Amino acid sequence: MRVVNIGICGLGTVGSGVYNVISRNLAAINARANCEIKIAQIGCRRDNPDCALSTTPVTRDIFEVAKNPDINVVVELIGGTTTAYKLVMTALENGKHVVTANKALIAEHGMEIFSEAESRGLMVCYEAAVAGGIPIIKSLREGLSANRVNWLAGIINGTTNFILSEMDTKGRNFNDVLIEAQEKGYAEADPTFDVEGIDASHKLAILASIAFSTPLSLKGLFTEGITKLQPQDVAYARELGYAIKHLGIARQTENGVELRVHPTLVPQRSLIAGVNDVLNAVMVNADAVGTTLFYGPGAGSEPTASSVIADIVDVARNMDSYPDTWVPALGCKLTALKEQPLLGIEEVETGFYIRFSALDKPGVLSNVTKIMADAGISIESIIQRDQPAGESYVNVIILTNVTKEKCLDEAVEHIEQLETVRGPVNFIRVEYLDQA
Amino acid sequence: MRVVNIGICGLGTVGSGVYNVISRNLAAINARANCEIKIAQIGCRRDNPDCALSTTPVTRDIFEVAKNPDINVVVELIGGTTTAYKLVMTALENGKHVVTANKALIAEHGMEIFSEAESRGLMVCYEAAVAGGIPIIKSLREGLSANRVNWLAGIINGTTNFILSEMDTKGRNFNDVLIEAQEKGYAEADPTFDVEGIDASHKLAILASIAFSTPLSLKGLFTEGITKLQPQDVAYARELGYAIKHLGIARQTENGVELRVHPTLVPQRSLIAGVNDVLNAVMVNADAVGTTLFYGPGAGSEPTASSVIADIVDVARNMDSYPDTWVPALGCKLTALKEQPLLGIEEVETGFYIRFSALDKPGVLSNVTKIMADAGISIESIIQRDQPAGESYVNVIILTNVTKEKCLDEAVEHIEQLETVRGPVNFIRVEYLDQA
Repeated sequence: MRVVNIGICGLGTVGSGVYNVISRNLAAINARANCEIKIAQIGCRRDNPDCALSTTPVTRDIFEVAKNPDINVVVELIGGTTTAYKLVMTALENGKHVVTANKALIAEHGMEIFSEAESRGLMVCYEAAVAGGIPIIKSLREGLSANRVNWLAGIINGTTNFILSEMDTKGRNFNDVLIEAQEKGYAEADPTFDVEGIDASHKLAILASIAFSTPLSLKGLFTEGITKLQPQDVAYARELGYAIKHLGIARQTENGVELRVHPTLVPQRSLIAGVNDVLNAVMVNADAVGTTLFYGPGAGSEPTASSVIADIVDVARNMDSYPDTWVPALGCKLTALKEQPLLGIEEVETGFYIRFSALDKPGVLSNVTKIMADAGISIESIIQRDQPAGESYVNVIILTNVTKEKCLDEAVEHIEQLETVRGPVNFIRVEYLDQA
Repeated sequence: MRVVNIGICGLGTVGSGVYNVISRNLAAINARANCEIKIAQIGCRRDNPDCALSTTPVTRDIFEVAKNPDINVVVELIGGTTTAYKLVMTALENGKHVVTANKALIAEHGMEIFSEAESRGLMVCYEAAVAGGIPIIKSLREGLSANRVNWLAGIINGTTNFILSEMDTKGRNFNDVLIEAQEKGYAEADPTFDVEGIDASHKLAILASIAFSTPLSLKGLFTEGITKLQPQDVAYARELGYAIKHLGIARQTENGVELRVHPTLVPQRSLIAGVNDVLNAVMVNADAVGTTLFYGPGAGSEPTASSVIADIVDVARNMDSYPDTWVPALGCKLTALKEQPLLGIEEVETGFYIRFSALDKPGVLSNVTKIMADAGISIESIIQRDQPAGESYVNVIILTNVTKEKCLDEAVEHIEQLETVRGPVNFIRVEYLDQA
């Protein structure tokens, strides 16, 4: 039987998962790949106690793997965008196919990497870069290939979803949950990448490029984290029938595409509102199929390994075939991708949840509703809730219908100028996830 | 650009969807298929007003399509297993690749059809045969190829799910909802295929074969429909924190595989409990990835067309490549499939929901609980609820822990013999969907 030699670079959480799952399920994996997959070399800085390597040769120099003439497929699992970039380019220059789980690398350098691979007749696969074990790249790129995608919306970062789930179900505040998430290993020591939405923005850029056949780009992608979310907003949202999720949203409009990552109110009846803890889910709405949802573990050793190995199987099965028969990295040839205008956040249309502090006296609401009407904004509901005892101010919470964000900005500015209103007007975007 | 000629046989709901979606999204589909897809001929008994065929040649003889020397891919959308079988075999004999949406055909004749295709170096694709627009075949066969599947459980028949959703949310009875479903076109004039679980059993057999690498077979597959479900059971289940869904369940155990279709109590907190109306969802639990869920429209013209066309794109992209590089129909070569013992329903272990009518007097419950204990069954909870006014009997509802069905059968037999118990003991299986 044909042997396909794999070189794994990086033996951390994902690398050890890949090694362990391949070792455990080798016979079944080989039957599916229609060849004998062999881990021929591992490049890693140090051993990993989760992984008993037996006889596999190990090198401390990952570039040795990328240049090893025996190796057919280099699996990049070191993370980051500097050494990983050099490693992947070295592997391609040496005629190796590449499998990677590196979302930052693909989002930042994908076009160059795919172009290099295409010109050399090599594959670069990255299923594990988005939503861990969920086969969302394959589903979007191949399973829904008949469709024009209208929009997609995903919980694509497990750390923020864990934090929001805890805030929602237990009324806890952001900082307390973050500390627990760090203790549990769900969040990095420096959690910025996750909680500020950067990781999610990388994944969204990848999904959007496939969905809309546009070149990969992070430029202008609106990104807002969850660090400013308050428990009271989570509680009011719940009272109004919504959950707050940190979503990556991409939408095709007549005037261009929207790409945005931000906390979002979604109806509790929506399936995605029930996706809790570190789990991920991606909804895709497309013209032929309608709405689909793909759910599963968004991170972790073996779930991520599941996607990495699926890519290895695809590469191993196809590598001796004509490059024209391979599924292109972004769903179609790079030359067939077309730029589209990216809408600024002020042009985006969503519903809004608004909260501010106002004097508890007659006439306040009529001023506010007049401002909203003047800005062309319809109000879905208003509730007033007492602040802590002894305060003469109340919290006013407003849900608007779908409106352009620049109209909302105008209204917010005027509301903040009212003498009866104290402090800033806070708002969170609302998505109903049921429209085309 | 390379042209791939498609012949569509059948221009009903799905056929017209395939024609319309290809016509609408042709440029994007061609870019993904890396060729020019052309509908070269349509075979149908009559025109379809949903479909303006423009210049495509039409024949009333579908076998003409299967033999047309210009055609590369025959798309079988006529349904049934007699003419469809002949059509597919004729297409293969004439060197055509086949795409079909026909679950009955694949479940009953799949092994023979795939064997014929394999020996002739042709592809047979059937994504649309299971769960309509959800790319579950591709996800299971390719996206999860690293895994050993522990179990899968799916809502894979839209008609029964619509009926159960209506019974649950509106307290309606089976027959009333069935009539409405027929009026809405969700159910056939003869609804047996759907409501008795036959359609679901076909789909389950296909999923299980891929999941466990076993030959396709319907033999011994336990199938129970929803016709005997009573609104009171739906209501009691809800009170206990469960929804009733008609599930197809396949599980790998140490002693063989379980394959069963039946009404099932699932916890309301489970994501699949929130899948309502005609929608479908399949949960897959596997050793590396953990639990995933795939959700979307399980039927309908364009959702089903979405899957048919995804198959056409796969065939068109790959047809000039070596057959060894194709994804095998059931995930691995037919010779690599292995038979496994199929467990009888009496060997299956689940929880049980039990309801019976008992005299409302002291001592009744102690007799029942002793019978359960003697049969080795642990009780999770018991509730008693009054029957209509004036009755001296109450409804007793018991939830058991996981137990073998033959133990339950034994207990039921003894309970039915109690003088204080009236009529039969009804039971419904319970799945928690959170275990490996």
